[in-house]
Amino acid sequence: MRAAFYISDGTAITSEVFGHALLSLFPMEFDHDTISFVETVEKAEAAKIKINKAAKRTGMPPLVFHTFVNNDIRKIIDSCDGVIYNFLEHFVAPLEKELQLDAKPTAHRTHSIHENSYDYRIDAVNYSLANDDGSNVTNYEHADVILVGVSRSGKTPTSLYLALQYGIKAANYPFTDDDMDDLTLPDFLKPHKKKLFGLTIDAQRLIDIRGERLANSKYSSARQCRMEVREVEKLYKKEKIPFLNSTKFSVEEISAKILNETGLQRYKY
Amino acid sequence: MRAAFYISDGTAITSEVFGHALLSLFPMEFDHDTISFVETVEKAEAAKIKINKAAKRTGMPPLVFHTFVNNDIRKIIDSCDGVIYNFLEHFVAPLEKELQLDAKPTAHRTHSIHENSYDYRIDAVNYSLANDDGSNVTNYEHADVILVGVSRSGKTPTSLYLALQYGIKAANYPFTDDDMDDLTLPDFLKPHKKKLFGLTIDAQRLIDIRGERLANSKYSSARQCRMEVREVEKLYKKEKIPFLNSTKFSVEEISAKILNETGLQRYKY
Repeated sequence: MRAAFYISDGTAITSEVFGHALLSLFPMEFDHDTISFVETVEKAEAAKIKINKAAKRTGMPPLVFHTFVNNDIRKIIDSCDGVIYNFLEHFVAPLEKELQLDAKPTAHRTHSIHENSYDYRIDAVNYSLANDDGSNVTNYEHADVILVGVSRSGKTPTSLYLALQYGIKAANYPFTDDDMDDLTLPDFLKPHKKKLFGLTIDAQRLIDIRGERLANSKYSSARQCRMEVREVEKLYKKEKIPFLNSTKFSVEEISAKILNETGLQRYKY
Repeated sequence: MRAAFYISDGTAITSEVFGHALLSLFPMEFDHDTISFVETVEKAEAAKIKINKAAKRTGMPPLVFHTFVNNDIRKIIDSCDGVIYNFLEHFVAPLEKELQLDAKPTAHRTHSIHENSYDYRIDAVNYSLANDDGSNVTNYEHADVILVGVSRSGKTPTSLYLALQYGIKAANYPFTDDDMDDLTLPDFLKPHKKKLFGLTIDAQRLIDIRGERLANSKYSSARQCRMEVREVEKLYKKEKIPFLNSTKFSVEEISAKILNETGLQRYKY
């Protein structure tokens, strides 16, 4: 299998996203390897040896995605037996010209604790955890958004993603069986109605997900799942709560759609 | 302020990472805007109007980072009053030649629910939440890694990041004051010693963080924080538990370092 390396002097997250976006265009499999924190000439030499070994083993030059700005290290990586894809080099000069400003490359520019947004993000994670699953209904004045929906409709992973990635304080509240008789908005949510965002899910998908957790239960029964989905969707429409169906979407997509619809301020790009 | 747009037919996460990596090289501020899910000609026209308005407002062509593969939509965006940076175009042709394979662009290639790793990631988030903060010490046989450390040394955000981003089941267990008299490894951790990874933190940083939560308490006192840090570091060394000091690192960096040191398999690139 063709080897693909993602290399950087930091986390290599940028190199991974860059390489993954390109390789996902090709209908073939790759053997992925990330080499992060290549901050010294010695580590660069070790990375080069690793790449060259993969070239020998596979009989094909590995694809090497990197974003080095330090010349000494870059030269070592560029001299390996792989094919180099350095996405910075095509764009830095045009951007320098456009901005009439020289690029000032420093190590660890992105994904580091020095990003302005970092403390917001950690605060948001702590907030979202403390306000997960209706565990604290008295604290919603500090929320940026409150996700609502039935159990297993995607609220918790989405809340955590919004917090970790964007620094958004996302609480979530589950509508449970007890609420379902003539479902109305609980009193403690009413003052925060503008922050509510609803999730819903196809009943069949809900039956499947709940069945994996608790097979042969009322919780996972077709009748119960259909009723809960019907009730929450009726509530969203009646109360004009914006909502989306999470069935076919990843947490990244759900989060991006929520940002789109609400115009919520994000603390990180 | 110069406007920067990140545009895509999906989440635009790739465009954001790409643009952010480039702009972070320049010591100036930008006014960021993401336009996601531009899947139709109509939405592309609306995006173009938004970019052109920003051009008028700022008197400077906005910087437009995109990754469109659909030609109809791309042409509309490319005809706006901004400067276009399309990072795919420089790399697709060389990669096609190298792989001797035509690129097969489809929408939503990355960050979608169709990625193989998606279910692993959601399972891992559920596992990490259920095994956060020592809440379930009988379930560690399913962990990929168990983070240990004193309260507020970064275990929880790191566990969640490892789960959400990489599909790694990361439990975490806090050493608390009760454990601190002659700190030894609790019996329930001993069978899983190979999965342990320790976090530590500079005592002064710990004093600051705990002080924000509970000022003037034993928990946040200099004496207590110094003692706890000293005890856990002694334990890590005695038990040969790999560990790192989280003080100067982001969750992304801590996670990347843990992956580096442990060689844990990640389910997503």
